[in-house]
Parts: sequence; C-alpha cells; structure tokens
Amino acid sequence: MAPPAARQPLSVVVLGGGTVGAQVVRLLTEQADDLAARVGARLEVTGVGVRDVTRDRPGIPSALLTDDLQALLDSSPDIVVELMGGIEPARELVLRALKGGASVVTANKALIATEGAALHAAAAEAGVDLSYEAAVAGAIPLLRPLRESLAGDRIRRVLGIVNGTTNYILSQMDATGASFDEALAGAQALGYAEADPTADVDGHDAAAKAAILASLAFHTRVTQDDVDVQGIRQVGADDVLAAREMGFDIKLLAIAERLDEPDGVSVRVHPTLVPRTHPLAGVRDAFNAVFVEAESAGQVMFYGRGAGGRPTASAVLGDVVASARNRVTGSSEPGESSYADLPVLPVGAATTAAFVHLRVRDRPGVLAAVAGVFAEHGASIRSLTQKGEGEAAELLILTHPGRDADLAATVDQLRHLEVVDTVLAAMRVIGEGR
Amino acid sequence: MAPPAARQPLSVVVLGGGTVGAQVVRLLTEQADDLAARVGARLEVTGVGVRDVTRDRPGIPSALLTDDLQALLDSSPDIVVELMGGIEPARELVLRALKGGASVVTANKALIATEGAALHAAAAEAGVDLSYEAAVAGAIPLLRPLRESLAGDRIRRVLGIVNGTTNYILSQMDATGASFDEALAGAQALGYAEADPTADVDGHDAAAKAAILASLAFHTRVTQDDVDVQGIRQVGADDVLAAREMGFDIKLLAIAERLDEPDGVSVRVHPTLVPRTHPLAGVRDAFNAVFVEAESAGQVMFYGRGAGGRPTASAVLGDVVASARNRVTGSSEPGESSYADLPVLPVGAATTAAFVHLRVRDRPGVLAAVAGVFAEHGASIRSLTQKGEGEAAELLILTHPGRDADLAATVDQLRHLEVVDTVLAAMRVIGEGR
Repeated sequence: MAPPAARQPLSVVVLGGGTVGAQVVRLLTEQADDLAARVGARLEVTGVGVRDVTRDRPGIPSALLTDDLQALLDSSPDIVVELMGGIEPARELVLRALKGGASVVTANKALIATEGAALHAAAAEAGVDLSYEAAVAGAIPLLRPLRESLAGDRIRRVLGIVNGTTNYILSQMDATGASFDEALAGAQALGYAEADPTADVDGHDAAAKAAILASLAFHTRVTQDDVDVQGIRQVGADDVLAAREMGFDIKLLAIAERLDEPDGVSVRVHPTLVPRTHPLAGVRDAFNAVFVEAESAGQVMFYGRGAGGRPTASAVLGDVVASARNRVTGSSEPGESSYADLPVLPVGAATTAAFVHLRVRDRPGVLAAVAGVFAEHGASIRSLTQKGEGEAAELLILTHPGRDADLAATVDQLRHLEVVDTVLAAMRVIGEGR
Repeated sequence: MAPPAARQPLSVVVLGGGTVGAQVVRLLTEQADDLAARVGARLEVTGVGVRDVTRDRPGIPSALLTDDLQALLDSSPDIVVELMGGIEPARELVLRALKGGASVVTANKALIATEGAALHAAAAEAGVDLSYEAAVAGAIPLLRPLRESLAGDRIRRVLGIVNGTTNYILSQMDATGASFDEALAGAQALGYAEADPTADVDGHDAAAKAAILASLAFHTRVTQDDVDVQGIRQVGADDVLAAREMGFDIKLLAIAERLDEPDGVSVRVHPTLVPRTHPLAGVRDAFNAVFVEAESAGQVMFYGRGAGGRPTASAVLGDVVASARNRVTGSSEPGESSYADLPVLPVGAATTAAFVHLRVRDRPGVLAAVAGVFAEHGASIRSLTQKGEGEAAELLILTHPGRDADLAATVDQLRHLEVVDTVLAAMRVIGEGR
C-alpha cells in the first residue's frame, strides 16, 4: 500500500440520485481506503442533490440528501459529479460549479455535445477539470486513453459504433433476415429500444457522441448541430442481404475525420458498409466500439458495453479519481482549452466509396446508361453485378473512393434516369480502397 | 493550458540507447511544455546509459550519453526508464533504482514475467512506482485501464492475442491455405518473424505476457514458468480448413482465468478455435487484442498494434507521465503490493470445449467406438461430422465444455483406439457453450 495520505480530505458532491448516482456513492464509500491511496487524499461525499428528498433512494444515506442544490455548490466542494441529464438546469449548475473552483465529472452527453466548448472554457479559466468518460461508450475506457495515451500522436480518423440500440437492430436484421420494423419491435420487446426510438434510430444519440469524439480527437469545437446525420430507418432487409453477399456488414457509424484538402474535419453519422474482415464488423448486438487511426499508434480499437448503471458508475469513478489527483498535484487536464479550431466541413467534402443498389429496366443499353452517369460525375466503378431478369433486374454497384458530393450527385441523377426504376439503396462504404 | 508548474523539475534517466530510447528522449524534449502542464513539474532527461558511448545514436544528444550506469543511478533520478531488455543486468539495475527511491518504467516483458513479484515488492517498500505498459501489446493502452478503469471490478477471464508473429502466420494460413512452414517462411521474408522463430511460434513470448496479464488481473504472483504453453507448429492447413468449415478461426490465445472450483487461476497459452462471430476472430495479421470479461463492465476488448518503435515509445511515455504525477502528489500506483496469492492451477483443472479431428478406418462400428471413448471420460459430444470414405475417412468432433483433464484423457485413449488411424488435431475451443 502507498503511505497513508496526510492531506485534507477532498469533498465530493453528487447532483442526481438515480441508479448511477447511488452506485457512485456506494463505490466511493466501499473503496475509500484504496481510493485514498491512489489519490493521495481521502474522498468524502458531502451531499447528494435531488429534486425530491422524500423519495426512497436505495444505497444513498438519507443524511446526504438535499434539494438545496445552491447550498451544495456554495459549500465549496472539490469535485461535483453531475448525473441529472438534460441541458437545463445541468448546464447552469455545472457552470456555477466550475466558476466556483470545483472540478466537474459528468455523464451528460447532450450537455457536452452542445455546451462543451463553453464549459471547457470555464474549466480552463478556473484551472479545474471537466471530464466525461461515461458520456461516450459507457463501460469502455476511451476518452482518457484518447487524451492521454494518444496525446503525443496525430489522430486521422475515428470510426465509432456508439449506439447499442441501432447496432442491435442491424445485427438482428443480419442474423435473421428481419425487416427494420420487425427488428425494431424485437429490440423494444427486449428493452434494447425505447418506445419512442427516434433519438437512437435517427442517429441523434450517435451524433452527440460523434461531436464529443471529434472535439477530443481534433481539439476543435464540434457541436451536435455540426454533425451530418442519417439514421437506419431506410436500411432494408434486401440491403443487408446484398451487403452480405459482397462481404460487408451494415453498421451505423459515427465518423470523425481529419481532411487535408480542404483543411478541416468531417463529422458525420450514417449507415456504412464495413468489410466483414474489419474489426468493427465483429461488433454485434448492443456492443459499442470505437476504432481510432493515429499516425504513431496506427489502428487502435476499444470495445465493450455502451450502457448500464454499474459500468457507467465505474467510468464516473475513474474520472473522479483523476480529477482528485489533479487537485492534489495542483495540475489540470491538458489540451481542451487550446483549440485548434479547424473548420467543420460539409459532408460532401469527405472522400468515401459508395454502394448503390438499383432496380433497372431489363433492356439493351441499361449498363452503358448507368455507367455513363457515374463517369459523368467522375465516380469510378469498382464492381458491378447484375441480379435477376425482367422486372426483377437489379444492379449492385461498388465505387472506388471519391468525393462524397460527386457520389451524391451521381445517385441524384440516377434517380431520374429513364432506365432506372428505383434506387433501392445508396450507402457509404469504408474499407477496401481506402 | 494549465498554470505553469512551480515545482522543481523531475529528472529522468534512460537505460538503453536503441530505437525506443531515442524516441522516448525525443518525445520528452519535443513535448516538454505539454508534459509539464500535465504533470505539474518539468521532466528533464539527465542521462542515457549505454554500453558503447562512441556509437552514433541518432536523436540522442551525445552530451547525455554515458556508460557509467552506476553513476547515473547514484544521481538520485526521479524516474528510471529501462529499455535494455533481457534479465541481467536489467534486473539488478532496476532493483537498485527502486531501492534508491526512483520510479521505474520498463518495456521488458521477460523481466516482469520472471521477476515481477520481487520488483513490485521493492517498489512498494520504497513507495515508488514500477510500470510497464509497453511490455504487453505495445501500442494498446491496456495495463493502465486494467488497473485503473477496472480497479473496482472483478475480472473473470482475460483472452489475449498478444503475439503478432503467430497471429500473422495463422491469418496467412487461413487466407491462403498455406501450410505452417510456408506461412512461417513468408512471415520471415516480410520481417514479421525472426530467423529463429522459437520464442514466437512455440508460445514463449505469449506466455510471458500471459503471466503479466494474469498477475495484474488477479493480483496474484504468476511467473512465466507457471504458464502451460503450447505453440502453433502442430497446426496444419487441414485444421485451419476444418475449423473454418465449422465457423471457427484458429488463434494462439493467452488465457488467464479465475476458477472457483478448485479456487485459483488457470494461465495457459495454446492454439484455440474461436467462433468467427467472436470479436477476437476479427483480429488479423500482426495485430494484437486483449479481451477482458469483468463482472461489472462485462466484455471489454482492446485492439491495436503490438510492436514497433514509435508505438512502444508512446506507451513508455504514458507511464513516465503517470509516475511523474505520482511523485508530485506523493502517491503511488495501488494494488500490486497487496497480492491475493491465489494458487495457479494445472491446465487440466480448466473447463474447456475441444475440437478433435481423426482419420479413422472406414468400417462398421467406428462411430460407436469413438463415441464410447468420449462417454467413458464424461466428455459430451456437441457435433460429429464424417468426411470422406475409405482410407480418407475423417471425423470432426466438437465437444461441449468439460474438464480439460477429461478431454486430454479422451484424446490420449483415442490415439490407441484400433479404429483410429491418426489423431490429426486436438484443440481447445472457446465460444459457444460457455
């Protein structure tokens, strides 16, 4: 064991008395001695702020509960753990805590994805920490390794499966041949999807996490509104089958990418064809994974469960320990205040390959006409497969990587081409060719 | 940026002037300001110990070079970075450094796998750190997350692809149908395997890493000698093909597992059938990955490059920063001194499923005879497939999980069964059924 800590205890205030809050209080109490050895000072929970103090909250001693959040913040805590969720009043309370000199740990992805820059600025001005490991891919140690282990590196691209609900739905469609609606209903029955699944299936949850990942990876202010988002409602059972025949899985990816020409970052969320040989293809069901491409470290991937009370509490605790150690050293987390402020580029600026699935009229010249549209926009075809005959004739086309805007224009024109009956699918592809 | 550090600089001594050493010196110099902000004190390289000071060492200022290692250690450095490799004189120098009050960072897996417990004890007694992130899966942030992020959790099992050479060879055999010898020759031609590949292909390198992972995961003294090792020389092209037909990849896994009955840990390295749907199956070529099963966090996987000068230096730097911060706080890394000291159990105590591949005499009653041997040892057959006829008749058998010793006894008896011509393969299986 390390020598006993001689320093004054550090006070920890928790805002929010739900499952995660109760777990955090429990862990801080149960592991008090270990944590003191690791931090160099004891950690003491001095209060848990809740709206309704009369409600029973298993695991939280009632003496700690208070609904006077103002008084909690006025008590000059060393660390404030925000677990309320939502933008207000979380934003105002976190800002007040930072300005009052407390370090803040939060699991609130919406707050960081919209107000991250302002909160980081407040933290930097006060010389305190703002950390949020639990906000992205809960159980997976991710943000700290991104900031610390890869701090001396230059990250080129981050590809994340960061929403368990959509990954579960796509995995089910792949495994069982189910339609999107069937797979969604199954996910809802099992509790993997909400009754209103909009935030998940339309990609908004993933977009918030993409904004956070992009901000960290590229030291640039990216908010949720900057993220180009496309969800998975349009992904059909046919697309999953066609992708599989070509050796791909369909995944909803959060992509944050450094572009050189034009200079900037591209941040987007969309269904993506991932080669079956890519490590992300092995990420099934409700699991999350974040794949990082960096200049020195090369390719690194972090994989695990994205949600759940105990894992989230464990991630929060890691942040509390790090912040506590910083208070003992008088240092603070580096980097967030020195933004590179790269422009966030429109999705069309990215380089990507595409998969285009067409129902066509089975007549002479159809291939030439379709290929001509690709050529017109400078989009290069890598493979073209014809399936079926007559009214069921279909074309499956994979392109080489090209400018996303050119591929979008190609698809747009195909929709109006006389020999094309329907554009069944048009999706982006990572992997081969890049 | 954090406020400028007011503390005295911390002195760093590097032992070894190879590629990694030069990279570490370069990174410490180039990133001096950032590191000072992160640590709370500046880091100064005060000397680089080498055997031959006359040799040109690009990237290391010659004024720093010395062959008087004793004088370097007598200078009371704060941190000693050991990059010499091998057991002696590294062991003696590291021990002297720790006893002298320096924290030690090393990338030396052989040293930690054989002398880890003694060195940890010396570090604990002196109240300093001993860290070695670069010793296992170089570029992947792994050991620190195991110790810190999962510190409040209970790890059940660690499955690692920790040797890039063997993973490259097995991937090539799978992709091209090559034999072991052909794939090895290819790996040697590309520089992925040494001229003498023994340490890699016979599993000794993986065994050292398995010992380190087991020690950390279970807080128990496990040395390389405790690890049951089987390499990949016996894996044939036929086995790879047969495994693939059943939906498996063959991987050389380092396995560290907590057993309840009998109480203890099982630590082993052997070729293993991994279901194609398992995240480890997607780990191809020279990549490494470590898959952790923990009670709270569930399944977590870390993936990336296992070797290379720049990634290794980056991992070393992360340890230097952590140790430096601990010196500023007056704290030290927790846990290693408080060993649980669980017994390391013989490989037969583990529970595992098996794949058995037999060439049999094609005559009536052969299936009954073979099945009878499994039944006799209580080994339960999950699937049995017959291939070919006459002299080429083969049986492919997958068992349900059972006691490893029972499966070994089954295979042993099959070798002497009259209807069995040859036991072509007998390998352990993870995945379904567990």
